[in-house]
Amino acid sequence: MPTSVRIALDAMGGDHGPEVIVPGAALALSRHRDMSFIFFGDAQRVTPLVAAHPMLAAVSSIRHADIAIRMDDKPSQALRTCRRTSSMWLTIEAVKKGEADVACSAGNTGALMAMAKVCLHMMPYIDRPAIAAIWPTMRGESLVLDLGATIGADAQHLVALAIMGSAMARIVFALERPTLGLLNIGTEEAKGLEEIKTASRILREAALPNLDYRGFVEGDDIGKGTVDVVVTEGFAGNIALKTAEGTAKQIAAYLRQALGSSLWSKLGYLLAHRAFAALEAKMDPRKVNGGVFLGLDGVVIKSHGGSDPIGTARAIEIGYEMVKDELLSKIQEALAGHASTQDVPPAASLSS
Amino acid sequence: MPTSVRIALDAMGGDHGPEVIVPGAALALSRHRDMSFIFFGDAQRVTPLVAAHPMLAAVSSIRHADIAIRMDDKPSQALRTCRRTSSMWLTIEAVKKGEADVACSAGNTGALMAMAKVCLHMMPYIDRPAIAAIWPTMRGESLVLDLGATIGADAQHLVALAIMGSAMARIVFALERPTLGLLNIGTEEAKGLEEIKTASRILREAALPNLDYRGFVEGDDIGKGTVDVVVTEGFAGNIALKTAEGTAKQIAAYLRQALGSSLWSKLGYLLAHRAFAALEAKMDPRKVNGGVFLGLDGVVIKSHGGSDPIGTARAIEIGYEMVKDELLSKIQEALAGHASTQDVPPAASLSS
Repeated sequence: MPTSVRIALDAMGGDHGPEVIVPGAALALSRHRDMSFIFFGDAQRVTPLVAAHPMLAAVSSIRHADIAIRMDDKPSQALRTCRRTSSMWLTIEAVKKGEADVACSAGNTGALMAMAKVCLHMMPYIDRPAIAAIWPTMRGESLVLDLGATIGADAQHLVALAIMGSAMARIVFALERPTLGLLNIGTEEAKGLEEIKTASRILREAALPNLDYRGFVEGDDIGKGTVDVVVTEGFAGNIALKTAEGTAKQIAAYLRQALGSSLWSKLGYLLAHRAFAALEAKMDPRKVNGGVFLGLDGVVIKSHGGSDPIGTARAIEIGYEMVKDELLSKIQEALAGHASTQDVPPAASLSS
Repeated sequence: MPTSVRIALDAMGGDHGPEVIVPGAALALSRHRDMSFIFFGDAQRVTPLVAAHPMLAAVSSIRHADIAIRMDDKPSQALRTCRRTSSMWLTIEAVKKGEADVACSAGNTGALMAMAKVCLHMMPYIDRPAIAAIWPTMRGESLVLDLGATIGADAQHLVALAIMGSAMARIVFALERPTLGLLNIGTEEAKGLEEIKTASRILREAALPNLDYRGFVEGDDIGKGTVDVVVTEGFAGNIALKTAEGTAKQIAAYLRQALGSSLWSKLGYLLAHRAFAALEAKMDPRKVNGGVFLGLDGVVIKSHGGSDPIGTARAIEIGYEMVKDELLSKIQEALAGHASTQDVPPAASLSS
């Protein structure tokens, strides 16, 4: 374990760039003193911002990058034209070179994933990556993966997602043996896609030591918090994530409209404002910021493009926790342990 | 068009059975006098309930059925053991026999779909059914399909869903040319599953007269109401529906908790209660009750299992509108029109 966790930051990522990323780093550092930073981006813009936080400046270096990937760049194009020169690429490369323990960017998700796949290697037993994120629930928080890194999944990939997700949940939720469900469109064993049914059978039979498999869950079980980890293929996972975001925004809009509609309801709002502040805190997407790319031989964190310094700090801290608690070796051990019971060679055992 | 729309009702369906279904029918009738009803179920229980509504009794007949499908019966088992004898089967069969124009049940969705598929025929050009439902949005309402009738969809099935969905949207939203999007995990043309990309190309090239194709939409576009009709394969559609339901319940629970947490917020709630009533009205699932099974040669409506009489009436009324506005022939014409441009024989033209 390194004495300080070294964070590579894409200073140009997200809707706001270094003006938000740098204060976010300063905030994370104020809570965890054993961090150091390498900022990649426009040095002229980044240097004064870092200098404004002396404690941060003392543990940071700044590396100039000419190019910043735009939020609307196509991933394939970004990869073709901005490889090796963009702040995003250099951020990931710092992890590959061993100069940093974590790469964090609030930039274009597709480009970040494409670059991470090209720059880093996949872990043994895994051949396609996943994005995992913490999802607020009625019971607290759950981990959901894959949120869109990989489209399509066979049974072995779903099992690999279960193993990676439960390893991450053990760290972020400090649980010995997180409960886990496979997202399906019914809880009957006979329902759903063949690959999900096969994955379910494998997980039941494997009875893995660090994972309490609970069977199928449905879309509404995510918000209920029925299980600690929800595993799904990336297409359905992304649809679920975006649909939930859309529904939350829709209800917030209804609420604003309803409460602004009369003098009495405005007064009511004022009286209830603490309750609303508590509600907003629960729904605060900044608190759960930080999608983790899993399956790669490095820790890459995607911060939300619209994050403010609080959200940025949270994303950095998730990366920090993953390193401190040795996510990659936990995943590696769990994968190797499972593979050893499957009697198949490593390269093909958990993916096809 | 029949002079009166004849509704076959599964009186035993749903969580509450005839005590809710019968008053729901009475309510629908009070708003649309040109309806008549056949109730299928336990005659001893249903008869006095119908008799309590003289206007309803005047246009209703009651047919005894010994068996009621339970909400937790497995569809395959229900089909095997309760075919021909259950209130649900007899309700659908009334449409097949031409005794009714609409079959409506609040029972087990899987069993209803399985029985409808066995009892009724598929429309020409279609070989697998879909469930469509009205989804409340920030802009009003949209139609979303397939919500889980069929798992997996090739490009031709997605195109068929688009044609059926836009025909239904023309009726329920009284639009000449509804806007339509394909649900995907990005709006870039290069992203997503192959079959969705192919369907997109077909829809662009076909430039159908009754459908304004707008390209890909993402999960959050459903709640935004970006398009009038959202088309998706049944697995992803069901995940989206259930996830949205879960999110709405989650936020409602947060809200109750937040507003019950102090005396001031309780007082605030009292002052704002009209605003909250307006909010609840917008979120009221009863108003959008009534999933329509599409692709079959009969109108089958699924009412929500937990519906009260208001929700039941709404589901009945959706069936009534589908018959009055000739949904089946509108779909048929649109399918035949598209097939004629595709230069393929009817049986294989829009499904494979």
